[in-house]
Amino acid sequence: MGIEMINSNDKMKAISKNLLIDRGVTIKDIAEIVYDLQKKYIPSIKHKDCMDAIERVLDKREVQNAILTGIELDRLAEENKLSEPLETLINGDNPLYGIDEILVLSIVNVYGSIGFTNFGYVDKLKPGIIGKLDEEGKKPNKCNTFLDDIIGAIAAAAASSIAHNFEDKKE
Amino acid sequence: MGIEMINSNDKMKAISKNLLIDRGVTIKDIAEIVYDLQKKYIPSIKHKDCMDAIERVLDKREVQNAILTGIELDRLAEENKLSEPLETLINGDNPLYGIDEILVLSIVNVYGSIGFTNFGYVDKLKPGIIGKLDEEGKKPNKCNTFLDDIIGAIAAAAASSIAHNFEDKKE
Amino acid sequence: MGIEMINSNDKMKAISKNLLIDRGVTIKDIAEIVYDLQKKYIPSIKHKDCMDAIERVLDKREVQNAILTGIELDRLAEENKLSEPLETLINGDNPLYGIDEILVLSIVNVYGSIGFTNFGYVDKLKPGIIGKLDEEGKKPNKCNTFLDDIIGAIAAAAASSIAHNFEDKKE
Amino acid sequence: MGIEMINSNDKMKAISKNLLIDRGVTIKDIAEIVYDLQKKYIPSIKHKDCMDAIERVLDKREVQNAILTGIELDRLAEENKLSEPLETLINGDNPLYGIDEILVLSIVNVYGSIGFTNFGYVDKLKPGIIGKLDEEGKKPNKCNTFLDDIIGAIAAAAASSIAHNFEDKKE
Repeated sequence: MGIEMINSNDKMKAISKNLLIDRGVTIKDIAEIVYDLQKKYIPSIKHKDCMDAIERVLDKREVQNAILTGIELDRLAEENKLSEPLETLINGDNPLYGIDEILVLSIVNVYGSIGFTNFGYVDKLKPGIIGKLDEEGKKPNKCNTFLDDIIGAIAAAAASSIAHNFEDKKE
Repeated sequence: MGIEMINSNDKMKAISKNLLIDRGVTIKDIAEIVYDLQKKYIPSIKHKDCMDAIERVLDKREVQNAILTGIELDRLAEENKLSEPLETLINGDNPLYGIDEILVLSIVNVYGSIGFTNFGYVDKLKPGIIGKLDEEGKKPNKCNTFLDDIIGAIAAAAASSIAHNFEDKKE
Repeated sequence: MGIEMINSNDKMKAISKNLLIDRGVTIKDIAEIVYDLQKKYIPSIKHKDCMDAIERVLDKREVQNAILTGIELDRLAEENKLSEPLETLINGDNPLYGIDEILVLSIVNVYGSIGFTNFGYVDKLKPGIIGKLDEEGKKPNKCNTFLDDIIGAIAAAAASSIAHNFEDKKE
Repeated sequence: MGIEMINSNDKMKAISKNLLIDRGVTIKDIAEIVYDLQKKYIPSIKHKDCMDAIERVLDKREVQNAILTGIELDRLAEENKLSEPLETLINGDNPLYGIDEILVLSIVNVYGSIGFTNFGYVDKLKPGIIGKLDEEGKKPNKCNTFLDDIIGAIAAAAASSIAHNFEDKKE
């Protein structure tokens, strides 16, 4: 069963999107962040452009893999199914546990260096849904250690994709 | 209990080393690879230098985090405790699942670009214990998807640490 | 002559610091940014801690190499000594030219994922001397395309070094 | 004049290809390396597939930027136009100068983790044209410090692009 799923990019994308929705994140939530990142550079940008860019990002196998892996680790931490001390490191979003930021490099790297700086920015400022996830993750039976970075990385990658397309159209 | 562990670097290092040994990897196995990587550049190198370099690498918090996380995912895959399709992706070491290589960037990056090229090299050639782990991982109830990359990354980082120290001593 | 210089880490560090000062950047300027990045996490932090952390970052060969290379490219662009279209790309700090952000990965990567997010943050917000360099670089005979990213990366790496030391002392 | 060039992706690609040819590298030379990297995984692969993949890689703005910047630094080093000690570092392909490997991360990262390990492999083994460039770069008035890494990175990225396309077609 697993084999059929992973051999179809469409199925992998659908599974990834469903996982995000199950964890309380919509494409529209992410599009808000992308819009705020890009409107100062491209005043004519529409929310639709941001939604489309996120869909392009979710088409990438690297992005799907990062979503599946990160959300699984969050879920296992919530259910206390990880071994110690990993359970404590992930569940407490420990400042010296940087694997969440490393995992999402697989998303951020795909669109070059603009993705990279946008990610650092949203990871620090935690706008919109990212801030909400960060707060929610502090509750006793909740863990969003990987999810907030995944959302930040998708938003950063989508913003970069828009920036590249916009510059290319100038010619 | 977890909190005490993760606040002590010595304890985190001891846990990480024990995990490697539990999975069948000794520091001596890794030192063999480091020795082979460096002897052509530093003919006077000793196995002791390689063991010491690996100890320095294992001192790093990023390296400990990568070991804990990667081996946990291998173990959970072996025990069929991951959700589909992640279970199939990791258990089958799927060629389009590159999160194992991304995770170990946290190890490889620490020692700059020499670590980076050494890692690619051992990841392709799979010398010594890495080849053994790769073969072993293909057995029905065994998964070394993350472990072989972790060992390759530790070896690559240790080789880089030796190269840096050697060049610095030339002055 | 070059050989002697590059075989001494002390000389390479001194050359790198002098290059920064020649381009109008003092260690104190960078320390201001580090202080602002860390004071919210470590209220007891002193400016002296930030200056010390920057000195540790400047000890690294990767950092010295990035400073030498980036400032050389800025200087050559200012003097119109680069071939077209590279001259126009660098002199105009073109948004699709991301080599400046890539170059400083060699600085940022050294201290793990905290360095990475701090860099993205300061690269977007351009606090203190970074904003000044960015403005100055827009003048006709001036180019700071690489320099502002180098300063951001040094500040981010120093902030990460402080964060790691602080967490380790907790044990 | 520069502005028109950089606003056209086609012109930027043509300039990049011409620079490679001027430095003695043909697309066919690179295709040989790609073919050798992939034939063991995809026995039916044709040289034409490798040439096409290289063309896709050269379409990317990040790749064009890396080619322009790296070859410029090699050329300036050859003509003794760089400041010391950078001149000596680049002209001598100093083992502690890792900016060449960092620069090409902008090429390698674009195709995810397969590109990353392939690059390390060819960077160590130096097959075909890479070995020739490496040897040639040791001659008195010649410098290929950046070029050999650029070719390795393009080959690695092209191999990854082929691997991704091949796996996707399996579904």
